[in-house]
This record gives sequence, C-alpha cells and structure tokens, in this order.
Amino acid sequence: MNNSEIRFASRPTGLPTPENFEFVDTTVADLNDGEVLLKTLFISVDPYLRGRMREGKSYVPPFVIGQVIESGVVGEVVESRSAELKSGDLVMGMLGWQLYNVSPANHLRKVVPGAPPSAALGVLGVTGLTAYFGLLDIGQPKSGETVVVSGAAGAVGMTVCQIAKIKGCRVIGIAGSDEKNFYLRDELGVDATVNYKSEDVFESLKRSCPEGIDVYFDNVGGPVSDAALRLLNNGARIPLCGQISMYCLDQPDIGLRPQPLLLVKSAMMKGFIITSYMQRFGEGVTQLAEWFMSGQLKHRETIVDGFENTPRAFIGLFSGENIGKQVVRVP
Amino acid sequence: MNNSEIRFASRPTGLPTPENFEFVDTTVADLNDGEVLLKTLFISVDPYLRGRMREGKSYVPPFVIGQVIESGVVGEVVESRSAELKSGDLVMGMLGWQLYNVSPANHLRKVVPGAPPSAALGVLGVTGLTAYFGLLDIGQPKSGETVVVSGAAGAVGMTVCQIAKIKGCRVIGIAGSDEKNFYLRDELGVDATVNYKSEDVFESLKRSCPEGIDVYFDNVGGPVSDAALRLLNNGARIPLCGQISMYCLDQPDIGLRPQPLLLVKSAMMKGFIITSYMQRFGEGVTQLAEWFMSGQLKHRETIVDGFENTPRAFIGLFSGENIGKQVVRVP
Repeated sequence: MNNSEIRFASRPTGLPTPENFEFVDTTVADLNDGEVLLKTLFISVDPYLRGRMREGKSYVPPFVIGQVIESGVVGEVVESRSAELKSGDLVMGMLGWQLYNVSPANHLRKVVPGAPPSAALGVLGVTGLTAYFGLLDIGQPKSGETVVVSGAAGAVGMTVCQIAKIKGCRVIGIAGSDEKNFYLRDELGVDATVNYKSEDVFESLKRSCPEGIDVYFDNVGGPVSDAALRLLNNGARIPLCGQISMYCLDQPDIGLRPQPLLLVKSAMMKGFIITSYMQRFGEGVTQLAEWFMSGQLKHRETIVDGFENTPRAFIGLFSGENIGKQVVRVP
Repeated sequence: MNNSEIRFASRPTGLPTPENFEFVDTTVADLNDGEVLLKTLFISVDPYLRGRMREGKSYVPPFVIGQVIESGVVGEVVESRSAELKSGDLVMGMLGWQLYNVSPANHLRKVVPGAPPSAALGVLGVTGLTAYFGLLDIGQPKSGETVVVSGAAGAVGMTVCQIAKIKGCRVIGIAGSDEKNFYLRDELGVDATVNYKSEDVFESLKRSCPEGIDVYFDNVGGPVSDAALRLLNNGARIPLCGQISMYCLDQPDIGLRPQPLLLVKSAMMKGFIITSYMQRFGEGVTQLAEWFMSGQLKHRETIVDGFENTPRAFIGLFSGENIGKQVVRVP
C-alpha cells in the first residue's frame, strides 16, 4: 500500500523553512505480531520540535538528517495483529509524520471516549499534562495568588490559565494579538491580559498585578519574561516550560540576568520536561478529563487541513499564528 | 562615657568609598532595665551590606543617611541591668558599628563556649548558617555528586565547600587567586579549583567536572556563573546565595539568560535569605558546632585591626582581599 512521509532534510538556522522538510513516497511495511496499522487523522506540531532540529544533546535526542519527523499523532486502526486493539479503534502515540504508521500496539493509548479525538494531542494529552504538572507541582499556586502566564493563548498556556482559575487565582495572560487576548478574557475568564506586541509589557503587567506576581508560568522567555521577573513577590515560583522566543536563535540568549531578582525575592525558577512526570500521567489525565467533561476546562484548536501543510503549520508556531493547540487534520 | 560610631554618610554609586562613611564622637546612653552595655570586640563586614546602601526596597530595609551602620558584632558585657547576662559574658548580636553598644539582653546570644569568640560572626554564626541551609536545603547534595562553589574562598563559600565534602561530594571551588585556591585544596580538601582571574572558567570547569555539575552554589553571579550554568547536569540545583559581582552595579545585570539552560536540564535555581530559616537556627548551630569542635569544619578569618579601619575592611570585600570571614578586631 502506498504511503507518504515527511523527512527531516536539513537543519534550520533561525526560523525553520519548507526546505528543511522533504516529502517522500514509500510503501507500508507488513505487520508483525503485536503491531497495528494506523491511518493518520491528526498530527500535533509543537514548538519543542525545534529543539530536536538542533544538533547536539538536549533532553530528547536530535533528529537525524533523513529520518521521518516524529510527534504526537492520532490515528485509526485499519489493521491489527494485536489482541489489544481492533480495526476502528482511535489511538494516540508518538509516531511519524506519515499517512500510515505501523506501530506496536503497546506504544499506543486509546483516546478518551466521548471527547474529540484530537483532544488527545492537546488538553487531554501531553499538552494538558504539561500545563497540569508544571503549574501545580512547580508553580504551587494558592487561592488568591496572582499567576501570570506567557504564551497564554498557546495550547499549554491556555490550559494553565484555566487550571489557575479553577484553583482560585487571579490570572493574567500575555499573548501577541487582541484577538487572542479577547478570547482569553471572554471565553476563558482570564482576569487581565497583556498584548506584548502593542503594549509596554512591564507597565501593563504592573497595572494588572497591583499585588505583584506569585507564579510566573513561562512559555516564552526573552524580554517578556524580563518584565515579569521585575514584579515578583517574595517566594515567587517560576515554572520554565518553554522559551519559544529563543528556539530559533543560534546564539546564546543575552539579556537580563534574573539571578539578582531571584535572590532578593527568595524566588525559585525551575525547568521541567513532562516525561519526568510519566509515573503520574494517569492521575493527570483523569483530573483533566473530569474538568473537560464538566465544562470547566475548554479546548481550542487551530486546525490546518492536509498532510502536505504539516511543515507550514509547524513553521507558523514561531510567528504565533495559532490560538490554542495547533494540529493538522489529515482527511 | 565617650563613644565613637560610624554613620552612613552618603549612598555609594558603584564601589563604596571611605566618603560614604562618617566617624562621629558621641557618649554612651544610660542603661534601662533589661539592657546591657557591650564593649565591641569584633565587627563583621559582609557583602550584603552593600544592598542596604541602595535606596529602595530589598529584603532588608535600606540604611538611612545619618544612621549608624549595623552588622554582626561580638562584644563583652561591661555593665548589665539584666538577669540574663553579667559582666564578662561574651555575646553576639546585630549591633551598630560603635565602640560601645547598649542593647536589650534578649536581642543577644552568648557565643559557643570553647570556640573563638569571632567564630560567632562566621562559621558558627549567620555565615555558617547561610552555608548550611543554602547547601543542604536548596542544593540537596548527594554523596558522589559534583558541587561547584563560586566565591569559594569567602566566608560562606569555604564553609559550603567543607560541608559538601562532609556529605561525600566531589567539590570544585572557584576563587580569584592562587593563594586562595592553594588554601582550598591543601587545607580544606577541595578536589579541584579554578582561578577565575587567570583561567578560562568554562574550560577549566569542564576539565574539573568530567561528569558535569549537580549543585552550583552561587555567591558571585556574572560571567563566572554563566560558565558553570553551561555544565549543569539533568536535575541540577542552584542555590543563589549572593551576586557579589553585581552588588556595585547600578544598572540591570545584562548577560547570559540562564532560562534556556535550566529548561533543557530540568534544573532549579532558588534565591534565599537566611532569616527565613530562623526557626531552624538551633539545629544548624548545633550541627556546625559539632563539626567545628571535632575538627571536620575549619574556620578561617581575615582580621583587620582597629575600629577606624572598618570601612576599609568592608570596601576590600569587593576586590576579594579577604580569605574566609572578614572581621575587624577592636582592641
């Protein structure tokens, strides 16, 4: 059976371009015992993939030139040689950017019944878990505290905003367009927003955070973070989830060193990767699904149609084209 | 009775100078009930005092122009109107830079019997406690891990080095002279040292830390820290104790933003001030005194003689003149 895959063609310098990707026609391999054949329905494109396009060690191994790009994929089982899964089952896994994937059944998990299948890539998947553990385990928000979220209209950011509201916090979101901020305030109940492209971030945050910042959930880094760090309260916590403003820099990140600010405020900053919470994924998904099904936690996607548009959807992340989770739908 | 005191005359810009201090002759006030009169024996001069010379909020209130400078002082009781203390007792307290202080007895504590009195300003005082809680509570060193200490030949730093050795770690100290580094290696058993003035800090650290850095205890900040942060292991911890390289800057600290490095290593950086551990001071002093009395923990001071030299001893901290705790002895 014919297949098509997207390979990693060359390492980007700066912003990725379509030339870093190559479409190749292939054929589907035969199934071994325990494997299933999946037809791709949705592909997740995520900022952290830019890190894997860099040479050298990081927390996940770098992509090798010529390999198929991998990320979260939702697919439908079309053939099974496993007792665990049957044709028609909808599953999620870390799979290749291909029209069809062959995978061991035990590398996959079924999507939450009753939820939209693509939510398994977002609020009920790694994205939601990243928000959940980063905010609750590192950020430790207490009711009444002020939580500031950068990249607030991204997939992780908007989940963080909503969980912080569920926990009784005052929540301020930073995003890059009035449309995004309107959505955060009117649909998600965020208390105030900052448009980092049109406002002085420090002055705007200062107005929105008259009692200072207790938790700064950072998806972005760079000058936006510098502004937030100047408003920390004593004992503030800073989960470092992403630094999207930095991912396309090939130089070290020069700017405000935060150490003196952390020092005088006894503040804590901690990076994390979601795989270190693997043991607790069950707890996380259960809680996220409960909030989602009860309507307390909303899900928003930006959907691009067509397998051939996957690289473009990925590249668009770095100019902030998406609101919420960016996914590619494969018809 | 005649007294002399050192007042805060003007706010420094950059490095403090003798002109920021004023000597004033006064007389000793009468004692009220519960108070004692102390003759000053030793005065502690500490880098953090530079922070109090800056206007504006920090974790301790700024000095007011015209007030007597305060820091840790060891004195002998020469007159007492308290049942708690009697003439001849040696005590330590946060007191003025004066030949004589009048203080409520309950603001003072007796020095550890059998230890040199000035140790109450260093290894058995706030300095030792800062090393103890910063390293053990935030740094959480485990046996066999690599601990790097900046400002390693300063009072806090050399105590950190020794506690880390007691805990079974491989310890690398960074200091600014061969004499200091010789002392760290030969007297304190530090495994390797870096002279940040004569060596490429990154290259030298890389050689000394073939297995990376698990704990970076930071007294210094600036480019020295940038080098250490590039060698962090997964899950590294960074207690931020001081940023002496920054204290005399009146501009924000521009340099390598550490967030991307913390992110990819799931590393944690936390500022702290010792007063937040006040409830546990008893535990800390008991342990420090035990190590000290058994010879596991050594004490080293740089002593300047003469009350009139107190400002100069303080200013010298910022050019690294001291090895270990800098104190002024008042004959």
